[in-house]
Amino acid sequence: MVPENLLKQINFIKEIDKVKYIQRKTKLFNSDRNENDAEHSWHLAMMALILTEHSNESVDILKVIKMVLIHDIVEIDAGDTFIYDTQKSHSNTDEERLAANRIFGLLPSGQAQELIAIWEEFEAGITSEAKFARSMDRLEPLLQNTSNDGGTWKEFDVDYEKVYQKKSLIKEGSNTIWDFSEQLINESVEKGILKKKS
Amino acid sequence: MVPENLLKQINFIKEIDKVKYIQRKTKLFNSDRNENDAEHSWHLAMMALILTEHSNESVDILKVIKMVLIHDIVEIDAGDTFIYDTQKSHSNTDEERLAANRIFGLLPSGQAQELIAIWEEFEAGITSEAKFARSMDRLEPLLQNTSNDGGTWKEFDVDYEKVYQKKSLIKEGSNTIWDFSEQLINESVEKGILKKKS
Repeated sequence: MVPENLLKQINFIKEIDKVKYIQRKTKLFNSDRNENDAEHSWHLAMMALILTEHSNESVDILKVIKMVLIHDIVEIDAGDTFIYDTQKSHSNTDEERLAANRIFGLLPSGQAQELIAIWEEFEAGITSEAKFARSMDRLEPLLQNTSNDGGTWKEFDVDYEKVYQKKSLIKEGSNTIWDFSEQLINESVEKGILKKKS
Repeated sequence: MVPENLLKQINFIKEIDKVKYIQRKTKLFNSDRNENDAEHSWHLAMMALILTEHSNESVDILKVIKMVLIHDIVEIDAGDTFIYDTQKSHSNTDEERLAANRIFGLLPSGQAQELIAIWEEFEAGITSEAKFARSMDRLEPLLQNTSNDGGTWKEFDVDYEKVYQKKSLIKEGSNTIWDFSEQLINESVEKGILKKKS
């Protein structure tokens, strides 16, 4: 007899395969191919692992990794929201909360509750772990856009002021990484791949 | 001034983007689209997280997650080797060891040494963490092939005996998951999507 917990877990494991089909606006490094949410989540987990020493506050790195691995699973139901979309709030829509309840709800209840809580903690962005995890989420597209001759900034006409404002969240997770990011943003203006408001 | 460690880490983070281009033989669930190594590594990390309770031995789950996140990075240089390839040994070729040294060697030396050691530990398959991580690596394609009407078994003419032998490694990581897997394999024979040697 296969234990009921295992069957629920296998169902969840099959369901989250759909994350691989969710296209982000950003492209892979030096590429025209869109990144999907599974690739993005793997990359953030690697970044969090490698960059831990730069976190402003000490963090439980296992929790940070859980956050970045699961943070986009809700998009299976709610879809990807572009960070510079002015029509729609980027985070914590009712749709995303419903999605979290349905998808994590496939798991045995203790695990479902744990992952919903971790997802909520990431979205709230208050704890050390959430701040560091969110700084990884902002850093990756910055690295991509600077390697892609402006990438989504050019494609969607996003100006320096907007980028600077959105990226400054990195500072909450890491001053060191923010200093580096600020430098990248300024260099992008100098190179002409990011324009100041006219 | 950006610290030298951070610059090395950023170089590594850019380099491993290439993992997203490495195609595996297996396809996504209920799909004709090949999975790539980044998607695969993300899925294994999620599986390890969700299925920990079924490990035969107690494991340091953070180490297991590190193992599955990094286990295919060497394929950037060494390429994907199909598990049923009879010409080539699947693991620990000299080519892979060179790749590990080059790619992890982009990192500051302490981190490089740590990740090379974790990769070697995974490949050796002796510790509890390696056994559990490797059982995840065998389970995912089993779930994929059974959801894909035989998938790579049919495509590359792999028989029951070979599948049973390769998959039995799951038992070293988890008896519970092995019982479930054995059942899946037997059902596949009954359904005619996996053939016994004639």
